[in-house]
Amino acid sequence: MRIGILGTGHVGRALAGAWCAAGHEVLIGSRAPDEAPPHDTGVRIVATADAVATADVVVNATPGTASVALLASVGAPALAGKVLLDVGVGFTETGDLSHLGESLGEELQRTFPATPVVKTLCTIDRLVMVAPDSLEGPSTVFLSGDDPTAKQTVRGLLHDLGWPPDSLLDLGGITTARGQEHFSLLFIGIAEGLGSYRFGLRVVKLSEEHAAGAAP
Amino acid sequence: MRIGILGTGHVGRALAGAWCAAGHEVLIGSRAPDEAPPHDTGVRIVATADAVATADVVVNATPGTASVALLASVGAPALAGKVLLDVGVGFTETGDLSHLGESLGEELQRTFPATPVVKTLCTIDRLVMVAPDSLEGPSTVFLSGDDPTAKQTVRGLLHDLGWPPDSLLDLGGITTARGQEHFSLLFIGIAEGLGSYRFGLRVVKLSEEHAAGAAP
Repeated sequence: MRIGILGTGHVGRALAGAWCAAGHEVLIGSRAPDEAPPHDTGVRIVATADAVATADVVVNATPGTASVALLASVGAPALAGKVLLDVGVGFTETGDLSHLGESLGEELQRTFPATPVVKTLCTIDRLVMVAPDSLEGPSTVFLSGDDPTAKQTVRGLLHDLGWPPDSLLDLGGITTARGQEHFSLLFIGIAEGLGSYRFGLRVVKLSEEHAAGAAP
Repeated sequence: MRIGILGTGHVGRALAGAWCAAGHEVLIGSRAPDEAPPHDTGVRIVATADAVATADVVVNATPGTASVALLASVGAPALAGKVLLDVGVGFTETGDLSHLGESLGEELQRTFPATPVVKTLCTIDRLVMVAPDSLEGPSTVFLSGDDPTAKQTVRGLLHDLGWPPDSLLDLGGITTARGQEHFSLLFIGIAEGLGSYRFGLRVVKLSEEHAAGAAP
């Protein structure tokens, strides 16, 4: 699969390296394509438009407050028909919410209606995103999006990062991206409490004994 | 311990029954103290002020949008020196945030400075609150608050509900209540995805192998 990653920060580089190692063709798009590419990978950094042009899947790993403007500069026609895997969080740097009552994922889907948006991975640190088996047990990754085919594509890419099928929880349509993005506040609290950003979140279900005949 | 629970809804009743069964003296406070008490428990429903008057610990299990006004009607002097265990969530019924950029927990602490507030339990369903072993594995409960002694009291009460010490994660001061409350959006998404409100959240740490020498 051809993947164009927007964002040259730690998240974009970690994902690029992992998908490249899994055999995908990965380009990182940047407004400054002469910056140094990730170490020890075959990933190249190119102009934003070039990373999008050849991609089947575009990954938004830019700061959430800049994402809409950046993608608008690429333009809706260039994005049409491609899957947009959105890892961004719509919070400002001051900790305030920049997308009150909604989410960056929803805003992207509304702005680019011909581009199916799938929000995922924004509840975990980049080092966990690409190494789920570094944790002491199984954890959960969430998916939000309106397009089932796009979600299936994203499931495959998550599998390539090491996430087994039963670790993925489909929350529903793109409006549920709100919950994933608002989790960043609890993420920060947990990281402070643990003294580490490297943790996962596992949804623990009712035991079989209790689930039998239980009301929802 | 003497516990005064404010809120006669499902959450208040579930907690009242469980703490009563653990041997505490529990009163539920209500503006309509003639309503029927919880079944099969020794818990009585009394006037709000009476439930507060004799309590060591006051539990706020009222709707988050009504909590500040209700506690203000009780009055800061009546609450002074008591621990306020706050289970409320500061969201309106329409799903909007009523406490943007902060949390109900912080607002309560600011409004009642002589009453140490501890936010906990608001990330899980009432049936899980009082039966953590109904889940298929261990899960995590969070604490936020500025007063270490009050937190210790709350830890004891959580233990009495069945939460072992290693299931409790102290996030830090009361400002971290924000993360717990904002989680309610992801809670709803997970519940939709699972088809059940009865689930827990486990913070999964790095494996020992990976934690050794890892950067935070």
